[in-house]
Amino acid sequence: MTSGSDFVNLKDAGLLVRDMDRILIVIHRDPDGDAIGCGFALWAGLTQIGKSARVACSDAIPALYAYLTDCYDAAHPKEETFTHEHIVTVDTASPSQLGSFSDISDSVSLSIDHHSSNTGYAAATLLVDESASCAEIVYDLLLELGVKTDRYIAAALYTGISTDTGCFRYRNTTAKSHKITAELIDSGIDLAYLNRVHFETRSRGLVSLQRMVLGSLEYYCGGRVAVVTITKEMMLSSGAEEEDMSSISPIPRSIEGVDVGLTIRELDNGLIKCSVRTTAHANASKICSAFGGGGHHGSAGFQCSGNMGDVKAAVIRVVMGELGEKKV
Amino acid sequence: MTSGSDFVNLKDAGLLVRDMDRILIVIHRDPDGDAIGCGFALWAGLTQIGKSARVACSDAIPALYAYLTDCYDAAHPKEETFTHEHIVTVDTASPSQLGSFSDISDSVSLSIDHHSSNTGYAAATLLVDESASCAEIVYDLLLELGVKTDRYIAAALYTGISTDTGCFRYRNTTAKSHKITAELIDSGIDLAYLNRVHFETRSRGLVSLQRMVLGSLEYYCGGRVAVVTITKEMMLSSGAEEEDMSSISPIPRSIEGVDVGLTIRELDNGLIKCSVRTTAHANASKICSAFGGGGHHGSAGFQCSGNMGDVKAAVIRVVMGELGEKKV
Repeated sequence: MTSGSDFVNLKDAGLLVRDMDRILIVIHRDPDGDAIGCGFALWAGLTQIGKSARVACSDAIPALYAYLTDCYDAAHPKEETFTHEHIVTVDTASPSQLGSFSDISDSVSLSIDHHSSNTGYAAATLLVDESASCAEIVYDLLLELGVKTDRYIAAALYTGISTDTGCFRYRNTTAKSHKITAELIDSGIDLAYLNRVHFETRSRGLVSLQRMVLGSLEYYCGGRVAVVTITKEMMLSSGAEEEDMSSISPIPRSIEGVDVGLTIRELDNGLIKCSVRTTAHANASKICSAFGGGGHHGSAGFQCSGNMGDVKAAVIRVVMGELGEKKV
Repeated sequence: MTSGSDFVNLKDAGLLVRDMDRILIVIHRDPDGDAIGCGFALWAGLTQIGKSARVACSDAIPALYAYLTDCYDAAHPKEETFTHEHIVTVDTASPSQLGSFSDISDSVSLSIDHHSSNTGYAAATLLVDESASCAEIVYDLLLELGVKTDRYIAAALYTGISTDTGCFRYRNTTAKSHKITAELIDSGIDLAYLNRVHFETRSRGLVSLQRMVLGSLEYYCGGRVAVVTITKEMMLSSGAEEEDMSSISPIPRSIEGVDVGLTIRELDNGLIKCSVRTTAHANASKICSAFGGGGHHGSAGFQCSGNMGDVKAAVIRVVMGELGEKKV
């Protein structure tokens, strides 16, 4: 996308921020650990060097992150007014991701981001797309600004790095993710607490849905294909939330010997959603393109009308072709 | 335990190894990722500096680790004979853990270990008990010996660090674990492959057992206690292996709001095994001591005779006392 944004390096971004005050930090809607971690780390860092700053988001910050929001809320009661002079966004690739703040996208002074899809909507953009998380860029920027990494900032940045890398499991993890994390641990974060909150706690609804999903598991092609199906009724009776789906879709492909994992789900609007995860032996994007969908080699998806059984049969036929298996 | 072992530092351990040749590296029985990673990293490092070395274990190395054993097996066909001059053990706290090699425990020249329970059975012991994994000690020792961390050694050491820290999730993880990992990634390991093998692949038997276990889930004390039960029949019909149990025991406590997670299992010998996992709000070791068992504050266990239902009821009574709940 063409853009008038000035893509700046770390040093220049530091100079820009040094000249700012009364900074509104806006993070993307449906905020994840990276957006939230970046927002509060930047707030604390800017406050430390004497600037006035606030964090804003179109959606509420989940209660999970109380270890970051409690301190912020105590400092800035909800009733106070704040007139900003500058807007900085973090981890936000496009104006639409700002949700109810999308109308301010023309007046963003600086966008700090790691998505190569960043549309360049801000006056200046600090983009480091090889970063596993935006938090790693914020870490560098805070150092550039002379901020001391205290325990609060370290916890916020660890939240960003660890959640965006699936606790260092995902393939986006780099040596730098680990190097910065070592520094953050040395700054005194409560690693056991943070990891328990983010990686060892499941809602009762998710546990209930996992049981039902495993009950629906079927194997095809001699075990090379695994399929789970999720009905509207299962979502309802389990009490699982939309956000729990990210823990469900990886299940079928995680099974030994499976090259293609399919999660087929009935949506509230009557459509069928199919999520496809593959190993190097099959192309998820190619499979989904047969149904008008798309994605990456290892992970793709599509939505279509029809009933679950028909969609399942149709996808399995395409998958068998992709795997070079004889049609049965 | 009293011991005649000389507890040496890194430098002295390096000097000892420099003087050795024809080294038999023995790792503990039922070898895990750390033992295997350490064994093969040390083998490759010693070979690199011109020493003759072999790896030995009482049990077979699981096929999962083919990325380490293929290269070793190619270099050292099974039929070759090897007469050792020195024995070095890694990650092995006591002679009994050597399995069929326990009779050589009196002639171990050096034990490299991170277990504070190391009995000092070797002539010299390099013990660093604050290390999350033994692999971190082997990393330091190889540097001390002037070994270059090549891709093979890096993969072996990453295997040790990542498996012993649950991919950096467990509370034993330190800044040093991350610092060394950053170096290993820079040495060119295939992070995506290693993480997929160790952290994203489950056997069909385990998946089947997980479904049954979730089906047995019950909550007590308003959701503060979660219990799963595993019968002999479930183990048999799922096809799960003993090693799969390490993925099962954390399940009940991982549920939101749960302070005490109990896994109660019927063993083949007719005894009942109970594994207790707790948050900071309850002491697992204290709960288990009521049944003659023990362990740590957050994780403990015991075995007893009886039937599953009676044992479950008895444990829940003790747990309610520990949680300060009224008996019902």
